[in-house]
Amino acid sequence: MDPLKHIRIVLVRPLYGGNLGAVCRAMKNMGLRELVLVNPSPDMDFSEAQKYALHAEDVLAERRQLDSVAEAVGDCAVVAATTGLKGLYRSHARTPRELAGRLLEAARDHRVALVFGPEHHGLSNEEMQFATHLLTIPSAPAYSSLNLAQAVMICCYELYTASAQWQPPKEFHPEAPVVMRERMFELWRQMLLDIKFCDNIKIDHMMMGFRRIFGRGYLSEADVNILMGLARQAMWSAARARETPSDR
Amino acid sequence: MDPLKHIRIVLVRPLYGGNLGAVCRAMKNMGLRELVLVNPSPDMDFSEAQKYALHAEDVLAERRQLDSVAEAVGDCAVVAATTGLKGLYRSHARTPRELAGRLLEAARDHRVALVFGPEHHGLSNEEMQFATHLLTIPSAPAYSSLNLAQAVMICCYELYTASAQWQPPKEFHPEAPVVMRERMFELWRQMLLDIKFCDNIKIDHMMMGFRRIFGRGYLSEADVNILMGLARQAMWSAARARETPSDR
Repeated sequence: MDPLKHIRIVLVRPLYGGNLGAVCRAMKNMGLRELVLVNPSPDMDFSEAQKYALHAEDVLAERRQLDSVAEAVGDCAVVAATTGLKGLYRSHARTPRELAGRLLEAARDHRVALVFGPEHHGLSNEEMQFATHLLTIPSAPAYSSLNLAQAVMICCYELYTASAQWQPPKEFHPEAPVVMRERMFELWRQMLLDIKFCDNIKIDHMMMGFRRIFGRGYLSEADVNILMGLARQAMWSAARARETPSDR
Repeated sequence: MDPLKHIRIVLVRPLYGGNLGAVCRAMKNMGLRELVLVNPSPDMDFSEAQKYALHAEDVLAERRQLDSVAEAVGDCAVVAATTGLKGLYRSHARTPRELAGRLLEAARDHRVALVFGPEHHGLSNEEMQFATHLLTIPSAPAYSSLNLAQAVMICCYELYTASAQWQPPKEFHPEAPVVMRERMFELWRQMLLDIKFCDNIKIDHMMMGFRRIFGRGYLSEADVNILMGLARQAMWSAARARETPSDR
């Protein structure tokens, strides 16, 4: 079972439909599915939520609505509550990155909940009492309060990346090994002499420059082939110029 | 100079004011300040942007507006363009976490730009041609397309965390060292015998259980003091019960 499917997002007293919809989208982007609302605002605009949930309407439709945090997390072994505040009782808060491993470990065999407070005030101490862990998201002291959906996104993103499910883009062109790059540098050396870019005295120094230029980044086999092709063509062109006396 | 102040967010042809405002807030949350819009939609709702920028109206107000990506990134040494697509020409895309170090290193002495495409289509190949690096955000294959402001948030968050500026909550109660925990276990052992929770035969086995319970998580010096206080009180209570014959 995919542990991300065991991780429940609990929104306590959320106010805005836009945020609710954006939360659904963020969850689906990061492979989560289970959403519980605890006492959403009576003014919650569900059509706005629908709009922001774009392609994640299924997560929105499958949400459950409950009357207390106790009910929302009752079956969970691990409950992480988010807090933006710092203070004596919240000094043991950890970042989503620090806790992601612990949450995923628990989610292999148990239900896990991440609990988020309402937009303007966060969770009350009472709503936080079921938390086994406190979560705080690193942010700039000048303005540390994140939008609700952004906070959910960062937590889900950390869980998704820690779950190691993501496949990076397939690398179509493997990185060139030393022997291949050395063949290229040998061709370039000859080419630079042939086109008279520099002479035998300066060539070693110049080659250090080109090694620096080409050595810093990722150079694929395809890149090396392009660079070798260029060198061959320049040498061919230089040879033709030598054979054909210029008219001009 | 704070490298985050050298990192520019460039939004190309953005459509929605809500996203623009949310981008401003995300930037300020993560310590970034410089925003450039390239050809925003003529229908862009700037009052909506104002609303979503909540407490980041300064970032919104200081935005610049330009007519081309070339102008927006012309003075930058490193330009990272975001792409949600996979394919031959995008196979060298890296995650924000992989690139954060490189971007911050460049931003110590140079301007750096992160370029984001419009909401529904992303960047065109032409708009992407100035990119020295491609960025792709890990996301679930079932729905990999992130909201624009969420994508900006994740990139800014990775830069902020990599900049190591964040101060974790001050730990008021340091973790208890072994000698302190051993004093506590010694008291508990005596207490369990005193209150007749178990006898001399079972006590070693029971203490392994309590070591397991208390050993797994973070146990602060304050926590250990509470647990030692409890043991002392239970022993005092048991002694009193022994001295006072029960009336019942």
